Amino acid sequence: MRPNPVVERLGRPLRLGVVGGGPEAFIGYIHRSGAELDGRFRVVAGVLSSDPARSRERGQKLGLAPERSYGTVEAMLATEASRADGIEALAVMTPNDTHHAICRAALDGGLDIVCDKPLTNSLADAMDLVARVRRSGRVFCVTHTYAGYAMLREARAQVAAGAIGDVRLVQVEYLQAGMAVRHEDGPLTPKLRWKMDPARGGPSLVLGDIGTHAFHLAEFVSGRRVSELSADVGALVPGRRVHDYAMAALRFDSGARGNLLVSQAAAGAENNVVLRVFGANGHVEWQHRDANYLTLALQGEAPRRLGRGDPYLRPEAARTMRIPRGHPEGFREAMANLYADAAEAIVARRTGVAADPLALDFPTVEDGARGVAFIEAAVASSEAGARWTRCVLPD
Amino acid sequence: MRPNPVVERLGRPLRLGVVGGGPEAFIGYIHRSGAELDGRFRVVAGVLSSDPARSRERGQKLGLAPERSYGTVEAMLATEASRADGIEALAVMTPNDTHHAICRAALDGGLDIVCDKPLTNSLADAMDLVARVRRSGRVFCVTHTYAGYAMLREARAQVAAGAIGDVRLVQVEYLQAGMAVRHEDGPLTPKLRWKMDPARGGPSLVLGDIGTHAFHLAEFVSGRRVSELSADVGALVPGRRVHDYAMAALRFDSGARGNLLVSQAAAGAENNVVLRVFGANGHVEWQHRDANYLTLALQGEAPRRLGRGDPYLRPEAARTMRIPRGHPEGFREAMANLYADAAEAIVARRTGVAADPLALDFPTVEDGARGVAFIEAAVASSEAGARWTRCVLPD
Amino acid sequence: MRPNPVVERLGRPLRLGVVGGGPEAFIGYIHRSGAELDGRFRVVAGVLSSDPARSRERGQKLGLAPERSYGTVEAMLATEASRADGIEALAVMTPNDTHHAICRAALDGGLDIVCDKPLTNSLADAMDLVARVRRSGRVFCVTHTYAGYAMLREARAQVAAGAIGDVRLVQVEYLQAGMAVRHEDGPLTPKLRWKMDPARGGPSLVLGDIGTHAFHLAEFVSGRRVSELSADVGALVPGRRVHDYAMAALRFDSGARGNLLVSQAAAGAENNVVLRVFGANGHVEWQHRDANYLTLALQGEAPRRLGRGDPYLRPEAARTMRIPRGHPEGFREAMANLYADAAEAIVARRTGVAADPLALDFPTVEDGARGVAFIEAAVASSEAGARWTRCVLPD
Amino acid sequence: MRPNPVVERLGRPLRLGVVGGGPEAFIGYIHRSGAELDGRFRVVAGVLSSDPARSRERGQKLGLAPERSYGTVEAMLATEASRADGIEALAVMTPNDTHHAICRAALDGGLDIVCDKPLTNSLADAMDLVARVRRSGRVFCVTHTYAGYAMLREARAQVAAGAIGDVRLVQVEYLQAGMAVRHEDGPLTPKLRWKMDPARGGPSLVLGDIGTHAFHLAEFVSGRRVSELSADVGALVPGRRVHDYAMAALRFDSGARGNLLVSQAAAGAENNVVLRVFGANGHVEWQHRDANYLTLALQGEAPRRLGRGDPYLRPEAARTMRIPRGHPEGFREAMANLYADAAEAIVARRTGVAADPLALDFPTVEDGARGVAFIEAAVASSEAGARWTRCVLPD
Repeated sequence: MRPNPVVERLGRPLRLGVVGGGPEAFIGYIHRSGAELDGRFRVVAGVLSSDPARSRERGQKLGLAPERSYGTVEAMLATEASRADGIEALAVMTPNDTHHAICRAALDGGLDIVCDKPLTNSLADAMDLVARVRRSGRVFCVTHTYAGYAMLREARAQVAAGAIGDVRLVQVEYLQAGMAVRHEDGPLTPKLRWKMDPARGGPSLVLGDIGTHAFHLAEFVSGRRVSELSADVGALVPGRRVHDYAMAALRFDSGARGNLLVSQAAAGAENNVVLRVFGANGHVEWQHRDANYLTLALQGEAPRRLGRGDPYLRPEAARTMRIPRGHPEGFREAMANLYADAAEAIVARRTGVAADPLALDFPTVEDGARGVAFIEAAVASSEAGARWTRCVLPD
Repeated sequence: MRPNPVVERLGRPLRLGVVGGGPEAFIGYIHRSGAELDGRFRVVAGVLSSDPARSRERGQKLGLAPERSYGTVEAMLATEASRADGIEALAVMTPNDTHHAICRAALDGGLDIVCDKPLTNSLADAMDLVARVRRSGRVFCVTHTYAGYAMLREARAQVAAGAIGDVRLVQVEYLQAGMAVRHEDGPLTPKLRWKMDPARGGPSLVLGDIGTHAFHLAEFVSGRRVSELSADVGALVPGRRVHDYAMAALRFDSGARGNLLVSQAAAGAENNVVLRVFGANGHVEWQHRDANYLTLALQGEAPRRLGRGDPYLRPEAARTMRIPRGHPEGFREAMANLYADAAEAIVARRTGVAADPLALDFPTVEDGARGVAFIEAAVASSEAGARWTRCVLPD
Repeated sequence: MRPNPVVERLGRPLRLGVVGGGPEAFIGYIHRSGAELDGRFRVVAGVLSSDPARSRERGQKLGLAPERSYGTVEAMLATEASRADGIEALAVMTPNDTHHAICRAALDGGLDIVCDKPLTNSLADAMDLVARVRRSGRVFCVTHTYAGYAMLREARAQVAAGAIGDVRLVQVEYLQAGMAVRHEDGPLTPKLRWKMDPARGGPSLVLGDIGTHAFHLAEFVSGRRVSELSADVGALVPGRRVHDYAMAALRFDSGARGNLLVSQAAAGAENNVVLRVFGANGHVEWQHRDANYLTLALQGEAPRRLGRGDPYLRPEAARTMRIPRGHPEGFREAMANLYADAAEAIVARRTGVAADPLALDFPTVEDGARGVAFIEAAVASSEAGARWTRCVLPD
Repeated sequence: MRPNPVVERLGRPLRLGVVGGGPEAFIGYIHRSGAELDGRFRVVAGVLSSDPARSRERGQKLGLAPERSYGTVEAMLATEASRADGIEALAVMTPNDTHHAICRAALDGGLDIVCDKPLTNSLADAMDLVARVRRSGRVFCVTHTYAGYAMLREARAQVAAGAIGDVRLVQVEYLQAGMAVRHEDGPLTPKLRWKMDPARGGPSLVLGDIGTHAFHLAEFVSGRRVSELSADVGALVPGRRVHDYAMAALRFDSGARGNLLVSQAAAGAENNVVLRVFGANGHVEWQHRDANYLTLALQGEAPRRLGRGDPYLRPEAARTMRIPRGHPEGFREAMANLYADAAEAIVARRTGVAADPLALDFPTVEDGARGVAFIEAAVASSEAGARWTRCVLPD
């Protein structure tokens, strides 16, 4: 069981409000479960639906006090701000088109934020949030959940420590099968309805849903930024009008190259993420299907299979240890690791006591904005016949 | 997110007390986390150390109310029994020699019980608990955690449904590396101190610690009972006086055979459990290292790799679904599955409304007693030169 | 042991001459071993070096008769043509720049040919060979060795039979580590000397060496032809002047998409080839590291792991069976499968008795030419900023 | 391509005769192919059936000269002994009951021998061969094929070099599925007819067929000898009268323990062999399904996956290298490695020039005799209720 710097310093967990994450979306469950897993947050208020009545009902079902099961975000923000025990942070897991307004209001209200990806549906909106976060000094964590896996932390730390030498090639892939079926021929679930509507889901279904995860991992583990890309974005399923497939050649600021492949229509595929980073002297490899392990293969040596919880791990990974080696952890703990770090940053901000620097390694609002820049660049490149296109944040 | 029959019927989670599970034992953390994961239990009282002062301090650290952070089990049972909102169930994760007295007292006090393995240090004590459970009608779950993994539930269900035909051979193995080092040459941790003391840890370190898990899985998945065995029990590490190694030839009541191998001194090994059950037409294979998958290999067909969360799973496994396919679950969820089922059984008993029959498939006090019978039979067989020895519960 | 249609019809193996494949190149050994493995060819003459004296010496070391250990290709072709027991086929495994002249001369001399890849260093030369093969009716097999693996034959057959539905996405990758080191800083081996010289090795080191293999597999297993591509070709190793890296977005004639990634400078990588073909209903996956198996994953079903030698294989794979299931075969047998098929085609041509149609599925001179077209298109696309570029054979 | 010490010293390959290995037995094909693969032997004479006419016909089909396609072993031994170019070594792959007489006659005729396992059907016969080999000084290799795999050579070398410390536990398993079906209910193939007849196949089907392989590997890789065992031998398939299953607890001369499990009736299993040897500091693990790799797991370090052909291998494995890393080898090369070593020993004996000591590491007649001792001990132990039984060769 990890120590709890929040309770140590505040004497209690942080009070968290949630927006979104109704019963049909498992991700809401994982957000709440992850937030509470380490006892650093307690969910005390929420808006669980865009329908006020349903929202209040669902909040109570989750165990929220009736008066803190709000019908609207506005009501929650206003009322909680007036309570002595009001929420201190907000977790946002609503449809993509609402992230910007909710986060802006919450930041303006002084809250720290944990927000799902993609950050926003336009780069302009994303940069607006970046600016507000910089001005306000608030903590803003974007839940690129995979970055919470202990063994991807290990991978990032190994690369940063020079284990594989200068990074030369990054390969990342995220394949799902859910959209291999033509859901558009039948009635859509509420979730698919907004996801497949560009006005709500954003300019690219696949890039928003999983492309930004892959892109973030490529930058997170390599420690490098993509500077330009050449992309092919489209649909594998005949007649589909939204994107279910994308690939991109990447070029990093350091000169390293990359290959990114994502699809939600890869029939028969599991929800698997594969990341490999090759350097001058070797490479690291990780995949979601085998999340408790990391392969480190140095040139001329036998590949090593590092395991979560093992004694030789670097501190960046070792500090996430909850249960010992050989006892698998999963997606829940990955999400919890992001919340744990965000909590540590928030309590540091509130108490003025510096956080463990290793706790500050979660995806930030800038990372979120980079994801949106990636979406825009990839779509633009593809529409221009795979032309190399810049992928950087405006100043 | 799974439905919550406890809250649906009682309007609240069950109130759980805990005994044991201090900070040096990760298993306490996993018990508490597993109990609360699905919102069916809430830990409201506890005894966290055999030292009363330390117990009270630790309980409060865990967030228990000061007046419910007890110094002794006796105090907790007495006081809670007098509270209107007293505990309804007790989770026991203390050193092995104390299980019997604590469980007996709790049963006599009318509580339902979740208890760690091995159930007791002697078969006589185990049978005493069996008798008390039968008389009282209380729910008694022994935490053979591996039986909580969704894909072992699938394996059991496949075997029961006849997928592999009549069971002919069961192979089970549990290998750890922790005792490959001669800890006895240095100062022992508190945990090792009681574990390596036969008066407290029981007649066989390795059989009590992990042998009973392996034995339970062999019976759980095959659906058969071991009737006799021939064993070799001893120490791999030279000069060691406790058992760190055991193997056994098994014979099942149906005539099937088995091979069981366990060691805590398998240097370089991970905490891995491997189970294979071969029938007339094929076999199933599972291992802890890859817990979200199950291999089903039918004679003359290509082996299939079934995944947790996939649409074709049998109801026994599908009902444990929390998050979709491709999102790994781990040890925590396995433990939570046992607690979830125990909660469902408890609420059924309390409300008189029958539980889902599939929820009643957790390890019971009889399973716990069988584990103790296994330990005694294996030690006796080994001491008699691997003589075939009966391994059954007395009437 | 497979039946031998050559000996059955001719009463003896075909007489094979070899060009190239000296001791420093393991591929020569594998060609000769593969050719003879099934008793369909016997190597009876050869030119083993471009240095006549060394060639004669080496040929005798390999066990060739002194008078058939030739100093030059010209001498071999002329002398063998005049012998009653002269060679009937020629295997070519010389540096790339010599393939065209040797094959042209051999075709003009009436020989059937097995030639290493890339077919030639220019598409014009490749098309010249295509034309000569068409005119002459000679058998011409290009040794895309991977296409000889039984389980890739199974993959191709499954796709052709519709097991995964219409092909939508093809992913292929071939990564090696040999060029992760800057060999150019030291004295080059003879093999690297010609390979790294564009005049001899061709326009692109990586594309010629392994890119054509990956490209051929993509077309071979999918049964589709690439019509255009967008590529990034270059060097991962700083300062390198030859290509050690390439990736390409592919578009197939059917509208399917593809992603191809190859590098010889992937530090720490094994010589691994990975191929996945996704269709409307599922996908197949194969990798060189695990060459005796094929994964078939249908949407909504548990992935199946098909094994070489298993009873349920399709005839295209089953016919390559030499030794039973569970006894691994390797690279040698893959090469031997190509030679076996070529021999069957040759004997059919010579006897006028039709070959088993399944034997005609080896890579042809057109496949070789497509590989050269791929190299030229990929280089052109990369130089034009990843512009989509046609990749088809001229009429 | 490996150097060829036979041709270097003799100027030609050794002349090999074969007995047994007709078309229905793939093992004959593998023997002949393995013998010739490295050009150290050439098969020049043979007896291919116990029926003289069929034998002569089959020999010619294999390409033997008509006058060297013999009808009986006696004829072959007599005639070849009188030829100037007569056979120098004999490979024996006949039914088990004939090994003794054939090998005895061949040894008496001065031939070196390669013989399939089990060596004989009785320990007395085996010891007779041991005595004759000792007296004659002839080379005698028993084809425990698995001992020919490069990565098991690496495993043995690592253990011998102390990489894992003192050996403490050996686990070996060999599971097949072929006998999961009740072949005895239908007409038996010729091969099964003799195998299932104790008078011909020997006292235990499963122990003779695969148990001796597993037993040899346990000793070969651990470098230790089994001194006693406790076994359970019988049939998994109801009503079967021959053994299809065996397990044994092993005790080695060094005090190490072992667990051996073999079955030919493990439904759905592949022909897989798994070996793990645990020492004081770590373990090695190999399996047939993944034969080109070896896991080396040291206590407290990340497990390493050593690959065939990799640069860090020990000389015992590196010397078997034919083709580079990443190009899989299989069962054929494993058999060829035994023949290659036997050839090196034979040529050393004939020329008086010492062989590379590393070439002398093939299974000998004593290893063969130990296999027979194992069979007898296991059957005796099982019949005596798993009593611990000595397993040593008589003086």
